[in-house]
Amino acid sequence: MSFGRCAACRYLRRRCTQDCILSPYFPSNNPQRFASVHRIYGASNVTKLLQRLPTHLRAEAADSLYFEAQCRLEDPVYGCVGLIFLLQQQIHSAESQLFKTQAEIAVMKSQTQYPQTQPFRAISGSNNLLLQQSDNDANL
Amino acid sequence: MSFGRCAACRYLRRRCTQDCILSPYFPSNNPQRFASVHRIYGASNVTKLLQRLPTHLRAEAADSLYFEAQCRLEDPVYGCVGLIFLLQQQIHSAESQLFKTQAEIAVMKSQTQYPQTQPFRAISGSNNLLLQQSDNDANL
Repeated sequence: MSFGRCAACRYLRRRCTQDCILSPYFPSNNPQRFASVHRIYGASNVTKLLQRLPTHLRAEAADSLYFEAQCRLEDPVYGCVGLIFLLQQQIHSAESQLFKTQAEIAVMKSQTQYPQTQPFRAISGSNNLLLQQSDNDANL
Repeated sequence: MSFGRCAACRYLRRRCTQDCILSPYFPSNNPQRFASVHRIYGASNVTKLLQRLPTHLRAEAADSLYFEAQCRLEDPVYGCVGLIFLLQQQIHSAESQLFKTQAEIAVMKSQTQYPQTQPFRAISGSNNLLLQQSDNDANL
């Protein structure tokens, strides 16, 4: 029956049988979904890929194939690899900002610890006194 | 000549002509590269995709197709969409860490500004004195 055909069988102008492997993932109300996937992979390759998977993983596979096909149609040169580059740049940018901020914290922590370093200054001061003393001794 | 055939023409057992569109991107010394792309997209779809692009963009397109094909062979359910999920998680993690670190800085900054509020403490102290004074006056 023509009305019961899935988007794939409608697109390929063939009978849609009850065991059509594409039917659950390419419903007739979304013809664009199959058209995209077919244009990039071809119906035969999509069918083979889904056939190799257990039934419970096929929906996720069909979704990811559709996502990649859409990316390739929008960006025929890089496809979703373009998106991967973009995300890697975002990670690099976020990590650089994080390192800068962590460095800022380290500087601030060393500044707030400054009062605790006063004993060192006192020792340094007494060293100066000792130096002054030894200078005085030398002058004697 | 059989020895001059590119990996695609060798794989497809056909003559490799001088104007073979696949030849520059699928050299004979890397048969695996074409095999991967052919298994996922099919030679015909790869040829069509490259034909639609200007020559200077075809090498990049062939590389990204190979990358996506490899991802799909390694992960038949998610392909390189799995990698995109992973990168998005990394971005989320780096950004969360960045916000926490920025919040830590904000707390530290407010703490380092604390000594500047001492005049307020002095005023508060003199208010106490005034209060003590008024208590004393009341006791008189």
